[in-house]
Amino acid sequence: MKARVGFLGPLGTYTHQAAYEYFHDSAIYHEQKTIKETLESLDTLDYAVVPRENSIFGSVIETFDGLKTLKRGTIQGEVVLKIQHCLVARRGAKISDIDCVISHEQALGQCQKFLARHLPSATTSSTISTAAAAQKVSKSQSLNVAAICSEICVTTFEGLEVLEKGIQDEDSNYTRFFVLSRNHGSNQSFTHVLLRITPRKTCAEHFDLTELLRTIDLCVTRIDRRPAPVSEPFLDTYFIEVAASKNDTSGWPDRLSNSISRLKERGHLAERIGQW
Amino acid sequence: MKARVGFLGPLGTYTHQAAYEYFHDSAIYHEQKTIKETLESLDTLDYAVVPRENSIFGSVIETFDGLKTLKRGTIQGEVVLKIQHCLVARRGAKISDIDCVISHEQALGQCQKFLARHLPSATTSSTISTAAAAQKVSKSQSLNVAAICSEICVTTFEGLEVLEKGIQDEDSNYTRFFVLSRNHGSNQSFTHVLLRITPRKTCAEHFDLTELLRTIDLCVTRIDRRPAPVSEPFLDTYFIEVAASKNDTSGWPDRLSNSISRLKERGHLAERIGQW
Repeated sequence: MKARVGFLGPLGTYTHQAAYEYFHDSAIYHEQKTIKETLESLDTLDYAVVPRENSIFGSVIETFDGLKTLKRGTIQGEVVLKIQHCLVARRGAKISDIDCVISHEQALGQCQKFLARHLPSATTSSTISTAAAAQKVSKSQSLNVAAICSEICVTTFEGLEVLEKGIQDEDSNYTRFFVLSRNHGSNQSFTHVLLRITPRKTCAEHFDLTELLRTIDLCVTRIDRRPAPVSEPFLDTYFIEVAASKNDTSGWPDRLSNSISRLKERGHLAERIGQW
Repeated sequence: MKARVGFLGPLGTYTHQAAYEYFHDSAIYHEQKTIKETLESLDTLDYAVVPRENSIFGSVIETFDGLKTLKRGTIQGEVVLKIQHCLVARRGAKISDIDCVISHEQALGQCQKFLARHLPSATTSSTISTAAAAQKVSKSQSLNVAAICSEICVTTFEGLEVLEKGIQDEDSNYTRFFVLSRNHGSNQSFTHVLLRITPRKTCAEHFDLTELLRTIDLCVTRIDRRPAPVSEPFLDTYFIEVAASKNDTSGWPDRLSNSISRLKERGHLAERIGQW
């Protein structure tokens, strides 16, 4: 039976693409309207894919706010996707046929150099999303119109093919996605863990992170901070990613469990919300 | 001569209020259109006030992105403001006179309980900002219309007074502001320092924050993370607030300088961008 995967939609988004790169054809994909809904889709679906951070724009706040109160599921994987815009047209079209390029305004702007060099006389026209542009080309009968969109669109919409991949001007735009699972996996060879920690209220204002990290006693690779889901001003919830160091890949799951116990003994709220 | 203070405008915002609580009548206030412009106003003005974080919505991304490339000035103070909506009317009006309340939609929503209890038969009408509502009441001749806005509005616009302060339903909404100074201050009794640290590129992906904080060897009270201002994917700039511990208020400035030197020796970019 195929896994059922919820993702931040609509069809053809880069989150859809990330989900596909993780599950390929072994899954059925269910588009969700918001990140909140995608996380909540774990009530009925097997997996959920949401963006975690983009290399230019930073952490996705809505995702971390959703993780503050995550009720069901656990992070079990990560996908890093290079954001690559593709020039997509009806099957059979050649790049010399194209006289009109459509896409979301932002994507058109991000591919200006390519358009100036290869399609200097083509007109451009904006759509509400990159996926909407692909859908429009899919429905048209014309070989003269192309969309700028994600590669997944040629799988999602009929009759399309990629004329050129990676046409964006800026070549270092990556997004990192979380893959969540409804059930706790049995993967024992994980190298990363995400901890969710809310310090004890009494010491919130003069809370010492160094001491907390010393308690964790592991390699900390990322920290995110969001207001805690309580009405205590400036009390924070920290999302702390720890990783196995290269020299120590065996003993660390035990050290991690001990660290979590020590944090709890000191009155902090500490939970493991993912491992991959 | 009065200090010239730039703040995130328009007049009557909570940033204006925060600036006023810091400088009172000793300054002339210059409204700026964006956070970026407010930080850049230090090219010509003496001080700048920008929001740092809100207790419900978290850190202000635009502020930290501006601090990544701050060219002139240094943080020299902080203001914590309780976000208190006021019911404001023409001087001489009584609460029983009010039959119409105007404000930004959000502020009206945040004061629903007060309105239901004290002005159940008043109509409400929305404006583009809370300050715009105050301005409208200021210009009107009617004693029957009131605005919901910040207290500073009665100083900013003519003929107004506060009928009731703190009318918001939710009572734990605070915003923390940075006060930046064009010139480095000579204040030697600071208790907080903000460090801006970008780790060496080579170890970015397996960069260990615990080790970095151990190098700092001081009480760390807050960490924010934003993509570094370089085209290296997932290289971060950290904003690390350190504070004097209660037991040690004398030796720590030296320890801090040593920490920064050690970070630099290890090839990290490390700078002190504020002390207060």
